[in-house]
Amino acid sequence: MSLDAVLARIDDDLPAATERLLDLLRIKSISTDPAFKSDCQEAADWLVNDLQSLGVDAQKRPTPGHPMVVGHAGPETGKPHVLFYGHYDVQPVDPLNLWDRDPFDPAVEDTEKGTVIRGRGAADDKGQLMTFMEALRAWKEVEGDWPCRITFFFEGEEESGSPSLVPFMQENADELRADFAMICDTGMFESRTPSIVTMLRGLLGEELTITAPTKDLHSGMFGGISINPIRVLSRIIAALHDETGRITVPGFYDGVPELPDELKAQWQGLAFDHASFLGEVGLSHPAGEQDRTPLEMIWSRPTCDVNGIWGGYQGDGFKTVLPSQASAKISFRLVGDQDPLAIRESFRKMVEDMLPEDCSVAWKDHGASRASVTPTDDPAFAAALKALTDEWQVPAAYIGCGGSIPIAGHFSKILDTTPMLIGFGKDDDQIHSPNEKYDMESFHKGIRSWARILDALS
Amino acid sequence: MSLDAVLARIDDDLPAATERLLDLLRIKSISTDPAFKSDCQEAADWLVNDLQSLGVDAQKRPTPGHPMVVGHAGPETGKPHVLFYGHYDVQPVDPLNLWDRDPFDPAVEDTEKGTVIRGRGAADDKGQLMTFMEALRAWKEVEGDWPCRITFFFEGEEESGSPSLVPFMQENADELRADFAMICDTGMFESRTPSIVTMLRGLLGEELTITAPTKDLHSGMFGGISINPIRVLSRIIAALHDETGRITVPGFYDGVPELPDELKAQWQGLAFDHASFLGEVGLSHPAGEQDRTPLEMIWSRPTCDVNGIWGGYQGDGFKTVLPSQASAKISFRLVGDQDPLAIRESFRKMVEDMLPEDCSVAWKDHGASRASVTPTDDPAFAAALKALTDEWQVPAAYIGCGGSIPIAGHFSKILDTTPMLIGFGKDDDQIHSPNEKYDMESFHKGIRSWARILDALS
Repeated sequence: MSLDAVLARIDDDLPAATERLLDLLRIKSISTDPAFKSDCQEAADWLVNDLQSLGVDAQKRPTPGHPMVVGHAGPETGKPHVLFYGHYDVQPVDPLNLWDRDPFDPAVEDTEKGTVIRGRGAADDKGQLMTFMEALRAWKEVEGDWPCRITFFFEGEEESGSPSLVPFMQENADELRADFAMICDTGMFESRTPSIVTMLRGLLGEELTITAPTKDLHSGMFGGISINPIRVLSRIIAALHDETGRITVPGFYDGVPELPDELKAQWQGLAFDHASFLGEVGLSHPAGEQDRTPLEMIWSRPTCDVNGIWGGYQGDGFKTVLPSQASAKISFRLVGDQDPLAIRESFRKMVEDMLPEDCSVAWKDHGASRASVTPTDDPAFAAALKALTDEWQVPAAYIGCGGSIPIAGHFSKILDTTPMLIGFGKDDDQIHSPNEKYDMESFHKGIRSWARILDALS
Repeated sequence: MSLDAVLARIDDDLPAATERLLDLLRIKSISTDPAFKSDCQEAADWLVNDLQSLGVDAQKRPTPGHPMVVGHAGPETGKPHVLFYGHYDVQPVDPLNLWDRDPFDPAVEDTEKGTVIRGRGAADDKGQLMTFMEALRAWKEVEGDWPCRITFFFEGEEESGSPSLVPFMQENADELRADFAMICDTGMFESRTPSIVTMLRGLLGEELTITAPTKDLHSGMFGGISINPIRVLSRIIAALHDETGRITVPGFYDGVPELPDELKAQWQGLAFDHASFLGEVGLSHPAGEQDRTPLEMIWSRPTCDVNGIWGGYQGDGFKTVLPSQASAKISFRLVGDQDPLAIRESFRKMVEDMLPEDCSVAWKDHGASRASVTPTDDPAFAAALKALTDEWQVPAAYIGCGGSIPIAGHFSKILDTTPMLIGFGKDDDQIHSPNEKYDMESFHKGIRSWARILDALS
């Protein structure tokens, strides 16, 4: 085969590929909000249709939540069997007033920093998912065949904790097992170094509601004698970290490893510019554990963050209410061998022990996944690293990632399939935020990168 | 004149009086939300029309906010000149899902505890305001004249900090000055003892927004290195009280008097049942300063409460956002000679001193009023107390009130008019909460009480 011909076809087809992505971005597939259930179905249908148009044997597969999309193509040969995983669901879009355009009316925009594709899901994860689809489309058009045995596996619940994923993988393990699982939900180191992520944090999501009086009260009549649940919740949140930034949940650091010297040396070599990383978002001071380096804070140390809080009157003006309830969403990023379920239990006990008289707490569980570390001994890793280096003309690197991609661990544990995390997102893509975008460079070179990687592996 | 004839007329007219009140309750005069501006105008017009139908020289008077309603009637004689103050605006109605009926579709309901008038504003303050109107309507119809010189003064901004009130009183001091200002925005002690409130707490309202990163971030990418404004806000709120319930703002207790022995004795005589007061709202433990009695906590001690808090993602499901901002509405109830402006300054400095690197705070001012204590030497107080005792057949009392009615202080300071705070609200009226109601007994005997008081004063 001719890699050059495939790359040339990719270049020629970029405008049409962009139109296809915009079409997919118009679908409001917000998985976390039940109001968008039919949109999630529509996104799954769109992918099935696109796969079938390439000649892939693809189907929408039901789950108790949003459907999976599964497809197979290419011969069983001596070459590696490559699975590609992505997700078609997107984050909610609020606060809507901070968007400069309708999040579901995507467009190509010329900005000071180059051309971007703007819209919810552009980077997370529809744009990244389509890099792989477009690479294979070009390959098939030029070669008339597939580079190796390929399996497509797309879910629609990644942004809402993937409740159906593990059962589906377990039930369909024989069908989904492959040599490598390509996971595209990651980015470039400092937006310029192509990277394979080998270290991922886990995630524990918790929601609590504290109830004190049984109804909202007048703070004049009851203020001073009635306990205030916002004050109780604030005390609990304030107690979750000590003065040095260390998390106080009992047993929390059980299973947290020290960074191996080798990786520590590699990371020093990356010369991470934390001042610029933080400066992009108006900050200057690394605010985590004060005895750790900035890269450790975001890649290899566990965290505890409050993702949302609410209680009482939040509208215009003032209302002297003493509320009945206060709530928060709290998440923990986990590393090494930290056990999410043990931490959940310890966290809940700590909160319950802190509750004053007359208060009760109700819990909602928002997922629990372990951290994962991928070994890189297989020569395929070195081959992929070289393919990335060839495309981007920058030496590619193995890196960590602060975010949680629980599926990486599921592939190795449930399917005995080696995860390979390669993506082309950039730090300023504003994923999970207003004005999300994906660089045209990420999209174009991302497609070309997959062609090179498939060529190197097959 | 014949008081008995007036009281009989009140009894006969109760059904019609109730219909008039329901009519006023249908007007959505929420002053704190700009969306209801025209409804506030409508409520003011309704009152002007009703006053004019009684032959009162009444007008709607513009302010920079919602209008005042002012009316005058009756001869200048040797008898006391009585002003009556009330407010036609109401609290917001959220959370709407906790209401058993449309808050602005009021109705008379038969409940286990008796007949009630249900709807937003039924008790606070439209129902109470109409007790005075109906007493005078009956008086005029029976006697053909007024008991004394009467001034009506209704505002539409009480629930949003009364920004126009002081300037209006200053500009119209000669017109509004009277011997007594009857203020109806209060209740019965333990829902059974008719009372004149002589001790009112002041109110300082503050809103703060803490900004850390300049935009919402992904907690995976930035968690651990970026400061989280919800955590910063929680630490500040947690630090506002010490372990004994004492407020920690420097200088906060300057000007807080100890309760005079005489009043302490009177209050002990009231045998306040705090277990039942708290039990009504699902609580058991007086949660204020641990070295104070329950009545002191709600009447004579200052407080600090969080009335609302918000930040990050609050919707269904989970969003791993690390938010840019977190906000809270915080109020202080003040007593004695506490200076609201000095406390505002000290509070803001305390918060600013606690802010970590990379954080900023923005403030909104939601009003500041001193506490007030009314002397009861004038024989009119004893006469009013006797009139209340006669009507309710329970010995009336001088009491404190935890809520803030800043206008009481304004009447004495700006107009040299003695405030007399008499109202017929009950503890379970759910003012500022869903399912607000006013007892038919409060309405009926309230009207009769005013007829007796006017008779006693004139």
